[in-house]
Amino acid sequence: MTERAAFGDWMKSVQAAIEEAMASFLPRETDTPARLHEAMRYASMDGGKRVRPLLVFAAGELFDAKHDALARAAAAVEMIHAYSLVHDDMPCMDDDALRRGKPTVHVKFDEATALLVGDALQSQAFLVLADGDGDVVRKLAMVRLLASASGSVGMCGGQAIDLASIGVTLSLEELEQMHRLKTGALLRASVLLGALSGKTPSDLETAALDKYAEAIGLAFQVVDDVLDATADSATLGKTAGKDAADNKPTYVSILGLEESRLLAEKLRSDAHLAVAQFGNKAQRLRELADLIVQRKA
Amino acid sequence: MTERAAFGDWMKSVQAAIEEAMASFLPRETDTPARLHEAMRYASMDGGKRVRPLLVFAAGELFDAKHDALARAAAAVEMIHAYSLVHDDMPCMDDDALRRGKPTVHVKFDEATALLVGDALQSQAFLVLADGDGDVVRKLAMVRLLASASGSVGMCGGQAIDLASIGVTLSLEELEQMHRLKTGALLRASVLLGALSGKTPSDLETAALDKYAEAIGLAFQVVDDVLDATADSATLGKTAGKDAADNKPTYVSILGLEESRLLAEKLRSDAHLAVAQFGNKAQRLRELADLIVQRKA
Repeated sequence: MTERAAFGDWMKSVQAAIEEAMASFLPRETDTPARLHEAMRYASMDGGKRVRPLLVFAAGELFDAKHDALARAAAAVEMIHAYSLVHDDMPCMDDDALRRGKPTVHVKFDEATALLVGDALQSQAFLVLADGDGDVVRKLAMVRLLASASGSVGMCGGQAIDLASIGVTLSLEELEQMHRLKTGALLRASVLLGALSGKTPSDLETAALDKYAEAIGLAFQVVDDVLDATADSATLGKTAGKDAADNKPTYVSILGLEESRLLAEKLRSDAHLAVAQFGNKAQRLRELADLIVQRKA
Repeated sequence: MTERAAFGDWMKSVQAAIEEAMASFLPRETDTPARLHEAMRYASMDGGKRVRPLLVFAAGELFDAKHDALARAAAAVEMIHAYSLVHDDMPCMDDDALRRGKPTVHVKFDEATALLVGDALQSQAFLVLADGDGDVVRKLAMVRLLASASGSVGMCGGQAIDLASIGVTLSLEELEQMHRLKTGALLRASVLLGALSGKTPSDLETAALDKYAEAIGLAFQVVDDVLDATADSATLGKTAGKDAADNKPTYVSILGLEESRLLAEKLRSDAHLAVAQFGNKAQRLRELADLIVQRKA
């Protein structure tokens, strides 16, 4: 019970830190163009569980990273995530009107603004990451890592495969490859950005973090699919049952509900095992793996 | 005549170099996701006059920059430019079907792909810029410069102001501010990226380049407006007369045609004057100012 309470407190403190970091790293709403800046904040403030920032901070603990460096890296990766949600929700993609229980950006503002919000949030992410103090060689490595995880062989590439897969029968391997790019790449980047915010990890340590990231990345998606099939829109804060309605392949449609739940549990064990070498210092990473698998929304 | 011919040859050699650089810095069409990679190349290869890469190379001559560093910086800024065209052309923005005489990306492929092409080209630009050899401090400065020029207080911000200005009466100052962000910021970044590809410019040199960039940035837009009002679609390779049809404020609508032409000439002189201190080494920059003002498309 003590451990649990401690994790909850830690989570809240990171969430507060990322909220503060986002507020300070985003252009002010009063600066021109004010409406764009207002929409950028609408899209990225006060949002979600902040899983990626939590991963940044948790991985940073392994390498004694300083708070300011972690807050900067976490804000950058969260801006990329926020931009991807804004663009995903647009009519030409998922056409979703609800996100985190609020109207999506193109509904609240307009489509052109949503397009620009996403574009500008991406630029801002790289600006934030390249700015500030810290070792320049590692900073440049972080820019490359985030750019690669965001682009055509990362998140955007996963989206493209996802689009092409509607109504198509995917094998489990193809589904995994799609998610490895679509959500896995940015989750992996979060873990490695956290590590790079401290000392440079060794190859062995990077390999361990990669294994951890791979496991939680897939777990994240399996659980998403389970929730999409079982929870309601109010709980999720977004439209439930969309995948089935859109005829999209999911873990549930391929493996069934029970098998998907078992897979999520197995991936949780894999994640724990991957970071065993870090001992106590990896406690937050283990707790985050638990959170990802046991979440209800 | 000799000078002119030499400039033409230099321009062709830079255009060939940027074509080669783009080909090598973009993911291969055969790599997964192949359709996205094909569309990224369709959007950015074999396109336009390559004004921004020309500026990168011309400014690089002042600071003895190496070819490889210039090619990398030029490819990065051109990817940002290409992504902005893809997103601008989308139905929720300018809704244009023709670009450089070819169907726009959302027409040739589809809207969702156009959205992802732009997003992935932006990531790729930062990956390319942060990669490769060279002084890491200057590289990081280049990332910050390009990110700032692309984002909400640069290109995207200019787009947002442009969107908000349809059917609105703008003053000359407001029109200038819009274009300073919308096109000026990236042209300025091109000049400074070229400089940073060589030695670090002094504050005085940076100020001179800023003045030059400011002048050609505005000249570029004034000439664009003149051409939009006077040329035909076949010559422009895009839909002519769109600004008037869209009821957008332009230099021509505010100043009239003759006054706009005089302004473009004045800005050309300003650009020449700004780089006078660099002597012969600034010849390419002067020739580019001439090209920008005297172009017919």
